Amino acid sequence: MKRANPSNTKKNSEHAPSCDWRSPRNKGARDDSNRIYRYKGNFRWSGVKTEKYKQKDGGWSAISRNVLIGNQGETCKFHLRYFEIEPDGYSSLERHRHEHVVVCIRGKGKIRIGEKTYSLNYLDTAYVAPDTVHQLANPYDEPFGFFCIVNAKRDRPKPVKKISGS
Amino acid sequence: MKRANPSNTKKNSEHAPSCDWRSPRNKGARDDSNRIYRYKGNFRWSGVKTEKYKQKDGGWSAISRNVLIGNQGETCKFHLRYFEIEPDGYSSLERHRHEHVVVCIRGKGKIRIGEKTYSLNYLDTAYVAPDTVHQLANPYDEPFGFFCIVNAKRDRPKPVKKISGS
Repeated sequence: MKRANPSNTKKNSEHAPSCDWRSPRNKGARDDSNRIYRYKGNFRWSGVKTEKYKQKDGGWSAISRNVLIGNQGETCKFHLRYFEIEPDGYSSLERHRHEHVVVCIRGKGKIRIGEKTYSLNYLDTAYVAPDTVHQLANPYDEPFGFFCIVNAKRDRPKPVKKISGS
Repeated sequence: MKRANPSNTKKNSEHAPSCDWRSPRNKGARDDSNRIYRYKGNFRWSGVKTEKYKQKDGGWSAISRNVLIGNQGETCKFHLRYFEIEPDGYSSLERHRHEHVVVCIRGKGKIRIGEKTYSLNYLDTAYVAPDTVHQLANPYDEPFGFFCIVNAKRDRPKPVKKISGS
């Protein structure tokens, strides 16, 4: 099932840091081959590393990341990540040019888009347009998990202190 | 929440027909604004039309499509669709340059990638690399539903009669 595609892997390495979280630097060999990531239960996948980040500057808290598609040399123009926010956790309030597509698959949470905040329940799907201030948070008692799809090549998020328009 | 982005919408209109199914021609106004599609239950979303296709040339059968992201002027470089295959249904056997990311979210099914066939259960995630012959099928008694993420700009699928290599 191997299918190397060296002509495209260089472009893939140009992606900017992931929104809301640190850069998912590619550490493994680039390998644009077919693959299946088996779901192991408890929102974990075989072959997908769960990465945890601690709060540094008060910008975010209690989030883990699983990069399903995007860290192993895939040539597609998007990355698929699964994020999980523990109770009372939140992502940084920020904006950037690239879009977000968020699909809730575990628990429930909140998403702030511009000046409004919306609840997200199972399979609710949000589209965050370019340059929109946004933040995800979990004010509930159970983990809030969601897929977040982004462009493979994307700009660096800009932290926002206070919302000024949407 | 409106956020028009006319400079990018032109590019978006250049996408080729969707893999395995007919072209999801954009019929509505282009509108790159923030939005949330609420899950209504039974694998349907508020504001997302369920499109059904009948078999024409024996290539595919019993599939419905819901384009969550990609038909309304979104500027992201990918489209998010939910497909559902009824019992005994299947997609066409084909190949193309663009990649597929498939995430099973309803029931279970089969995915043929190259010369191999794999089962797909809840949250199993498949990456189909460029130029790989592939097909999705549902040999089970319950509906098989999955997200399929593709590049917004993608090449036209080429039907395959018989597999010759992966």
